[in-house]
Amino acid sequence: MKNYESYEDLPKLKLPYGNEIFISDSTIRDGSQMPGIVLSREHKIQIYEYLHEIGIEKLEAFVFNKRDRDAVEIMFDRGYECPEITGWARASRADIDKILEVDGLEETGILMSVSDTHIYSKMRLSGREEAEEKYLDALQYAVDHGLRTRAHLEDMTRADNYGFVFPLVKKIMEIDPDCIVRVCDTVGYGMPFMNIDEPYGIPKIVQYLKKEIGVKNIETHIHDDYGFGAASSIAGFWHGANWTSVTFLGIGERAGNSEMEKILLFLADRVEGFDKYNLEPVTRFAKFMEKELGLRVPRNKAVVGKNIFAHESGIHAAGVLKNPFNYEPYPPELVGSTRLLLIGDSSGLEVIRYKIQETLNDLLDVETIIEKDDRRLLKIQKEIQQLYDKEERVSCISDEELLAYVEKYFLYQPICDPAHTGRGKFKGKGKIQEPVEEIEETD
Amino acid sequence: MKNYESYEDLPKLKLPYGNEIFISDSTIRDGSQMPGIVLSREHKIQIYEYLHEIGIEKLEAFVFNKRDRDAVEIMFDRGYECPEITGWARASRADIDKILEVDGLEETGILMSVSDTHIYSKMRLSGREEAEEKYLDALQYAVDHGLRTRAHLEDMTRADNYGFVFPLVKKIMEIDPDCIVRVCDTVGYGMPFMNIDEPYGIPKIVQYLKKEIGVKNIETHIHDDYGFGAASSIAGFWHGANWTSVTFLGIGERAGNSEMEKILLFLADRVEGFDKYNLEPVTRFAKFMEKELGLRVPRNKAVVGKNIFAHESGIHAAGVLKNPFNYEPYPPELVGSTRLLLIGDSSGLEVIRYKIQETLNDLLDVETIIEKDDRRLLKIQKEIQQLYDKEERVSCISDEELLAYVEKYFLYQPICDPAHTGRGKFKGKGKIQEPVEEIEETD
Repeated sequence: MKNYESYEDLPKLKLPYGNEIFISDSTIRDGSQMPGIVLSREHKIQIYEYLHEIGIEKLEAFVFNKRDRDAVEIMFDRGYECPEITGWARASRADIDKILEVDGLEETGILMSVSDTHIYSKMRLSGREEAEEKYLDALQYAVDHGLRTRAHLEDMTRADNYGFVFPLVKKIMEIDPDCIVRVCDTVGYGMPFMNIDEPYGIPKIVQYLKKEIGVKNIETHIHDDYGFGAASSIAGFWHGANWTSVTFLGIGERAGNSEMEKILLFLADRVEGFDKYNLEPVTRFAKFMEKELGLRVPRNKAVVGKNIFAHESGIHAAGVLKNPFNYEPYPPELVGSTRLLLIGDSSGLEVIRYKIQETLNDLLDVETIIEKDDRRLLKIQKEIQQLYDKEERVSCISDEELLAYVEKYFLYQPICDPAHTGRGKFKGKGKIQEPVEEIEETD
Repeated sequence: MKNYESYEDLPKLKLPYGNEIFISDSTIRDGSQMPGIVLSREHKIQIYEYLHEIGIEKLEAFVFNKRDRDAVEIMFDRGYECPEITGWARASRADIDKILEVDGLEETGILMSVSDTHIYSKMRLSGREEAEEKYLDALQYAVDHGLRTRAHLEDMTRADNYGFVFPLVKKIMEIDPDCIVRVCDTVGYGMPFMNIDEPYGIPKIVQYLKKEIGVKNIETHIHDDYGFGAASSIAGFWHGANWTSVTFLGIGERAGNSEMEKILLFLADRVEGFDKYNLEPVTRFAKFMEKELGLRVPRNKAVVGKNIFAHESGIHAAGVLKNPFNYEPYPPELVGSTRLLLIGDSSGLEVIRYKIQETLNDLLDVETIIEKDDRRLLKIQKEIQQLYDKEERVSCISDEELLAYVEKYFLYQPICDPAHTGRGKFKGKGKIQEPVEEIEETD
């Protein structure tokens, strides 16, 4: 018989390959390509600071204009060991030269578009042969000039992998066996399931690269057009990739990229022995992005949304009051957040009781217990329910309103109507008494 | 050799089991439990209308207070065949009675919390035996009163499935072999991968229910705490589930639920022969939710975000101008949206050329071609770049600003400086000439 009654009881997962895995940030590069986003130099530096605090191993940056180069220079000046700053180039000697001009850059990604639509219709090349020649020339040039490399196989999930991409990767390996092969799921066609064949199945692609070609360093770069972002990144790790390229909050082209914060949470909270990242800054980081870049972070965004530890509905809020493990997948401290109990139209009596008790105790600086059958409490519940029944109210009950209810029913009414008094049992400092009845009558 | 150069070239996927699959909406039920959301009667009716327009088969609603019952009554009055309106009850005869009081309700879900933490710590029952007795009694009562049933196996991804849940399901099948068994991934611990054992692996859970117990109707209900919402819903379909329970935009407790719009897009766009849903309303539906409920829909939200068909960065925008297939996973019409080309700090020359040409043509009601080496165009590009270089500008260039640039360089300057004229080649109505040079110098 298995019993899971606390976070410690829940078995952790093991990565099947047991390989060491790493995160590569593209917030400053792919993220900044998000329409409507303009990252100032100061934004980039601040993002770099957050990545450093979390412990992300690498980032990629553009260095094609002065603004971008200035930002990179300031990052180098910080002297941090992580994240390593790396470049991003198209497959041309001119672009590689731009990387070489920047002191300190030791690695660059090289864009190698591998789908036929990108080769013919986007790049207007004569065909795959010309594309391959161009890519391998740029790679050789980078290696000859002492750079470590990444091959960004753009649009690989809509490409002829057996006919073109895998043979290309073999030639890449001949030039640079340490090259990080980036599987770019450019329009999000990739799928995280094992039984899906190429070009869509991320597991089969990664397995082929690892087992058939012997690629040492495999990196996924997933877009979220069909909602598989985080799942495909994790699927990559599951089947032998050792890197994933992500952006914070998933910002990027169209539906954006796989979200760094989801990957971090999964690794930190679900995978055995994985504790190398510090997730405490992620909530602050999200607030920074929201405030400084005008991004909209929905309340229900996994990991960083305002609602992740907010509870309003009857069963959920009462369940959390009894034991947070009931309805919280992980403790708020893990991501630098805090629990929030809200009163709204779906709240039951228990959360109202708890919040009224808390408000009264704060106000009087005592520790009193409000029972669930306290008439004053039931009157407050009725007043709140009426607000919503009339459909005039569309927001939660604020702390100020709660205070007004407490003052009305607990402080002023006793003066006029002494029958109300005496039901709050003052018990001095101590543990708040658990409600004894079931809360199933509330919802 | 495989060639994928258009949407038609890309092979569709086949659901392995070939089973007919359905969508069950929980926007009005689980969605309305989202802290901070208050759905008025009018909101619920409007959501019902959108679900009807899309062709969603079923929804579940609360009927515990007058507001909820009034909304359900109005829905029935519409006389629509879909979605079917069904109820939601806790495992008690009193709750089932509430369902029976509502004319027209023929099916109800019954909450059966199956994890030990929910049994002991939330419901404060003496143990699994008492829980099982309670659940089966409610189920029998519902069946005896002529209701079709769903068993909502709450927190199944943190439960002892072999020790408690699967045996419970066998007893459920004895009472009602048509019962829809809902696999509730209540805190998002479920994972979409095949090689993950219970309690986390959605594929293994679904396969066991189907193959070992012979459950006919299996429904997934997935929460998005670790970002696996859509992937786990699809994984359910992949391994034999015939229903998934979702909410529009994924609203719901904490990180919310698996998103309906992602599931719809995947089925409509990626699965062979799947055309029973109408996706045209989803963009309007999202705007309604944003405007009426004050939800924040991020620009990069898959399917419905403002950026899904917006292109700004050099390579992407130029690629889309040549052929939308290059960087759009599916055409905007599929989801009732439109393409948008934006000029921002990451834009290259090609998108500026295209937008300036378009603005000039609209203004003069002609069809002229602006070449990429037109000096006036290059001056505009320089002015725009300077705006961002100075870091005073953090938004895209508006249509009004573009018009001002066109007026300044194409209309007024020729009067002072005749040397500027004559470079726009007026060619009369006709196809806009494709740029002939590579755009790789822009980014």
